[in-house]
Amino acid sequence: MAEDDAARFRLAVVEHALRLFAERGYEATTVDDIAAAAGISRRTFFRQFRSKEDVIFADHEFQLATAQRFLADNNGDAWDAVIDAVVGVFARFTEWRDIAVRRYQVVREVPALREREIVTVFRYERLFTEFLRERLPDERDVARVQFTAAVTATHNYLLRRMVRGESAAGVADLRAELAAIPRGGTRNASRDELVVAVFPRDMPPRQLADALTAQLGNL
Amino acid sequence: MAEDDAARFRLAVVEHALRLFAERGYEATTVDDIAAAAGISRRTFFRQFRSKEDVIFADHEFQLATAQRFLADNNGDAWDAVIDAVVGVFARFTEWRDIAVRRYQVVREVPALREREIVTVFRYERLFTEFLRERLPDERDVARVQFTAAVTATHNYLLRRMVRGESAAGVADLRAELAAIPRGGTRNASRDELVVAVFPRDMPPRQLADALTAQLGNL
Repeated sequence: MAEDDAARFRLAVVEHALRLFAERGYEATTVDDIAAAAGISRRTFFRQFRSKEDVIFADHEFQLATAQRFLADNNGDAWDAVIDAVVGVFARFTEWRDIAVRRYQVVREVPALREREIVTVFRYERLFTEFLRERLPDERDVARVQFTAAVTATHNYLLRRMVRGESAAGVADLRAELAAIPRGGTRNASRDELVVAVFPRDMPPRQLADALTAQLGNL
Repeated sequence: MAEDDAARFRLAVVEHALRLFAERGYEATTVDDIAAAAGISRRTFFRQFRSKEDVIFADHEFQLATAQRFLADNNGDAWDAVIDAVVGVFARFTEWRDIAVRRYQVVREVPALREREIVTVFRYERLFTEFLRERLPDERDVARVQFTAAVTATHNYLLRRMVRGESAAGVADLRAELAAIPRGGTRNASRDELVVAVFPRDMPPRQLADALTAQLGNL
């Protein structure tokens, strides 16, 4: 797809830019330096990016667009879809770990970039909340907002630990943490029918799930 | 207290500035206009604020400092303390509703201010997470992060609805919404303990298994 090719071209420029920022400092690196390192003209650079700052967060733009397409194509449970989208974002950041690590090193030195990053990160939250609004129009808005805030915060926390080299948490760890976040609808369901299960603490969750399915039928 | 007097003086300037921004537009209003309206000199203005932009978010600075003092003085349950701090912030915004409404009108017209607001809002989240880290050092970090993200998002959601005139939700409504947010601590069960899980009957077993894994650790 032409769109993906353009995205990959942009990511290659991002890699060069982040390497230069890390080596020479953000302020000292010019657009001409980046263009020269990436083997492109200044004109081509400005066809792809509005500014030097834009380069740093270009992969976020790609991630956001990818997550948006993923959600638009999804027909399953809407809460699951948001979790799958977040896990997809995390998986790609894991794959591009070098970019994420280099960006972290640049961003933490430049307060204006740190602020820009907070704003960028907030766009994921908004994307997910809007998706839940569209797909679950009868859901309580606060439930949606609490869910997406906790989901994106969990993702960002594990990503931050990864780029700092503090954690080797992978996609499965993220999934487990995200599963603990309450989804809307529970309030209505809990008014209808609750299950109280008592089991030994060391019972494996898979076994428990199987036992519950057997006891309760198709949950 | 002298500190409070200074804060109130600053808030009075904020009120004049926001009124002028609403009347004349943000760009068209100068620091000299604000100083004249507040009956202070340009020099006094710049002793209190670094810039025109700073004026808009001055009450956030006051709120953050107040919340920080509140938490530092609190000796009760740490999760409760965060909720009380958030409710306190909301109560003051309700009291200063005019400032909040005027700011909303200015901020939504100026993208740079909107971004600055997102960054400002993020500082509450960081304050609360740091407090929980200090007070509950054995808690799981993800549990803290999920809690503060959901708590601040809930506050911001109800505040936004209030300033848009979409909701008359008060402190009691906020408390009810915040009470639904799970707190950490569930993991501390010892090996030979039983787990009692209560969940909606229609919760998928796979989600339940994931949620239990996240809550209880490696079972």
